[in-house]
Amino acid sequence: MTDFAAPTDDILFSLRHVAEAHRLAEWDDDLATDILGHFAQFAEGVLAPLNAVGDAQGAQLENGRVRMPDGFADAYAQLAEGGWQGLRAPERFGGMAQPALVAAGVSEIFTGANHAMQMVCGLVPGAIDTLLHFGTSAQQGHWIPRLASGEVLSTMCLTEAGAGSDLSGIRCKAVRDGKDWRLEGEKIFISGGDQDMSAGILHLVLARSGTVEDGLKGLSLYLCPAAAGVTVTRIEDKLGLHASPTCQMAFASASAELVGTEGDGLRAMFTVMNHARLDVSLQGVAHAARAAQIARAYADERVQGRRSDGTPALLSDHADVQRMLDEQASLAIGARAMCHIAFVEMERAERPDLVAFLTPLCKVFCSEAGIRAADLGIQILGGYGYLNEYQLGQVWRDARITSIYEGANGIHERSLATRGLKGAGADQFEDLIRALGDRSDRMMADLADWAGWCNRMRESDAPERDAHAFVQATARLFFKACWVRCASVADHHPQPDRIIALSERVLSS
Amino acid sequence: MTDFAAPTDDILFSLRHVAEAHRLAEWDDDLATDILGHFAQFAEGVLAPLNAVGDAQGAQLENGRVRMPDGFADAYAQLAEGGWQGLRAPERFGGMAQPALVAAGVSEIFTGANHAMQMVCGLVPGAIDTLLHFGTSAQQGHWIPRLASGEVLSTMCLTEAGAGSDLSGIRCKAVRDGKDWRLEGEKIFISGGDQDMSAGILHLVLARSGTVEDGLKGLSLYLCPAAAGVTVTRIEDKLGLHASPTCQMAFASASAELVGTEGDGLRAMFTVMNHARLDVSLQGVAHAARAAQIARAYADERVQGRRSDGTPALLSDHADVQRMLDEQASLAIGARAMCHIAFVEMERAERPDLVAFLTPLCKVFCSEAGIRAADLGIQILGGYGYLNEYQLGQVWRDARITSIYEGANGIHERSLATRGLKGAGADQFEDLIRALGDRSDRMMADLADWAGWCNRMRESDAPERDAHAFVQATARLFFKACWVRCASVADHHPQPDRIIALSERVLSS
Repeated sequence: MTDFAAPTDDILFSLRHVAEAHRLAEWDDDLATDILGHFAQFAEGVLAPLNAVGDAQGAQLENGRVRMPDGFADAYAQLAEGGWQGLRAPERFGGMAQPALVAAGVSEIFTGANHAMQMVCGLVPGAIDTLLHFGTSAQQGHWIPRLASGEVLSTMCLTEAGAGSDLSGIRCKAVRDGKDWRLEGEKIFISGGDQDMSAGILHLVLARSGTVEDGLKGLSLYLCPAAAGVTVTRIEDKLGLHASPTCQMAFASASAELVGTEGDGLRAMFTVMNHARLDVSLQGVAHAARAAQIARAYADERVQGRRSDGTPALLSDHADVQRMLDEQASLAIGARAMCHIAFVEMERAERPDLVAFLTPLCKVFCSEAGIRAADLGIQILGGYGYLNEYQLGQVWRDARITSIYEGANGIHERSLATRGLKGAGADQFEDLIRALGDRSDRMMADLADWAGWCNRMRESDAPERDAHAFVQATARLFFKACWVRCASVADHHPQPDRIIALSERVLSS
Repeated sequence: MTDFAAPTDDILFSLRHVAEAHRLAEWDDDLATDILGHFAQFAEGVLAPLNAVGDAQGAQLENGRVRMPDGFADAYAQLAEGGWQGLRAPERFGGMAQPALVAAGVSEIFTGANHAMQMVCGLVPGAIDTLLHFGTSAQQGHWIPRLASGEVLSTMCLTEAGAGSDLSGIRCKAVRDGKDWRLEGEKIFISGGDQDMSAGILHLVLARSGTVEDGLKGLSLYLCPAAAGVTVTRIEDKLGLHASPTCQMAFASASAELVGTEGDGLRAMFTVMNHARLDVSLQGVAHAARAAQIARAYADERVQGRRSDGTPALLSDHADVQRMLDEQASLAIGARAMCHIAFVEMERAERPDLVAFLTPLCKVFCSEAGIRAADLGIQILGGYGYLNEYQLGQVWRDARITSIYEGANGIHERSLATRGLKGAGADQFEDLIRALGDRSDRMMADLADWAGWCNRMRESDAPERDAHAFVQATARLFFKACWVRCASVADHHPQPDRIIALSERVLSS
């Protein structure tokens, strides 16, 4: 088993030189380096050692309360003590007011160390954003300091049985009760619906304040603190993320407050969801990097067969193993570049259509990259990869959810290949690829092919039929362009030759 | 959760019409139909219901003995009682003397119902073959009836720590003791190294009768019955196949008999291994078919979103879900066709080089097809696919070993792309593709491209670098050719239109 080592150098290379974070006014290079260094140390020492424990023990439902695996409550106390839950929150609410790019680095490291725990803690920044955008000042003043200090964790209560990808079917009912509201109904697949780490839990609940006929317009968003009337009725038995309790929740006349405008719940909820989607992309990056780390460490130590000169060979000397190690590394670095470039675009806020175009591309590509890299890791280790001891199986199982949750990849592909081609996003994407990839003739040829396909998709009667192939190719183009960029700034990486070699592999594939 | 239904119709279509089993003298169509029907019933009623139980409980090592999950011993007793362990064994040893093709159908159904149990029972035909080829008549007379009746199960003790893919490092020592031998050493990754289902266990052990310097020529094969001196020192904690005990074994002056000639152990062991490799290919087919069955049943029932006319849609109405369901089905049917065609070639025994060429192609393609189809199944079910209840996670985890064991896929790819191109196999493969695919211009163009690549590989200084891409393309060509054949005999399938449509999808991809 290989201890988790945070890929801090790769993250800083990507933020600084690939995504050019300095283009953002709030970027402070020294401070970012410090913060990532501190979090890396915490993640390596405290969060990562609980990852296998969490997988083996799982979260347990006992007498209606969720018990987290051994050590999780203590690690959470340290996380809160370190101020990490308030990393992005405004200083007036007790936060550290750090930029999204620093938070992206922290989030990736958190997931690489312990995805299950990151799941339970990771919805807080989205909840804070939602309160900042839609909450009253009383709501902000009451909840944001508690979320930022770690006193309270938050959830996102969206899905119901029969209303997952299609939210118009939501039936959880919100009824006015004086100036408050009462919630009545069931929700499923609620991550961290309960736990024994934080003193309080704030549920953000999408519920129906209107009639069923109102469809999506009958939905409003509510703040519902854990209290009498909110119970966990079961936790799911899952393929992975055993330490992240996936709860079925019952709301029985639970007291709640409206956030934002009645009937406008979906728009408010999207603030949390957009956050969550970018976070999922980083989860994919984290899994790819972790799988690459484990496999590389193993392949560089394990003796297997002989070299052509008769001396004992390392596993990493074999051409096929090299191919797999290279693919893992190129997925991790390239997917990270995609995310960071999207983050910088988001923070610059000049091309919102481009951000809307890049977000689903990142979600689809990076989630699949994490699963693929974990799969390659298992293959590299061979029989040992199949043993739980080497942890690649856990990475693979934990990663597997990322292409499903926060919008199944097929749904993102369909919306990108239909509505997504109607706005300015696709043209701005072409500009981006041109800017990233301008040194490569191959890229320009690929881009011309893609633009032609794009036009055919726009004219097609049934673009959804080719959505998968089209979006996969689009993401691949973005990935390749990121590798052109990586190669062009390789001198800033601790191993420039490796970056150049990986770039060659990717661009010739 | 969807009960296992054996894909008997698809198997019979494939054996009869795609692989043309009637070209073999021993093929009896009515009898094969009867046998498969009976086994399907047994697998559905007895073996399959234990699959999830086995996964949850796992095999346990207690006081030096392996305890199988609840119900396994009883199911095994019924399996033995039904004569299934002796399906291929000669009648003079109490077997049913059925042809390999019937056994292939049974083996696929067995794995689809319960891969873990199939692992523990499935090495017997290879052991019997080894005894028939290399054993003395005393050895045959003693062991084959016991293996065929189910009184005894067998194992294959090959791998040691540091000697997995490279067997020249084997150190387990065989020392002469009068006319018998004594074994001394350790073996790892031994499937079914112990269990509480059969009265006896016969270990086939590859051990070093010569010196380390003799390399592979110092290895001999031994029969070593479970007895004092043979102990299980641990069982592995694995990603999947929890009910198949993967044992670390210690041989301490264990009494053994030589099988075949001293120093010729590898050749004898290959009899078991070739069997095992074809069996692994069928395991991949079984997983693909099972995953397709679960996903299809779910997608045809689950309501999700709306059709363009506003009426509620089924999950299977969505283009992206159709794409995934089609890919699953095409993998299952096409991979099965590849295996059956290889089996018929093997039984005809006219083109041994072609069989040697097809075996690794099937191993690589079919194992990956099983994993891929399971992965697609998870994606089709979305959040439910991630729940253990729907069993796709188990299929995925159980299938994952198939691209590793019996020779990691990368090793098969390397040997096929190097030594494998030197014999007559590649030319015979071209003939086969021409014969299967002769109705399609596209196939002939693909074949010409492939032949060119083949020549470049033969002339390359480092063919191992392109081995993966080349073998993947070679397997894909075989797969496509099988789909041309399937389409040309579609009238014999219960759903001819579906076969034609799937064939179109595959050939246009």
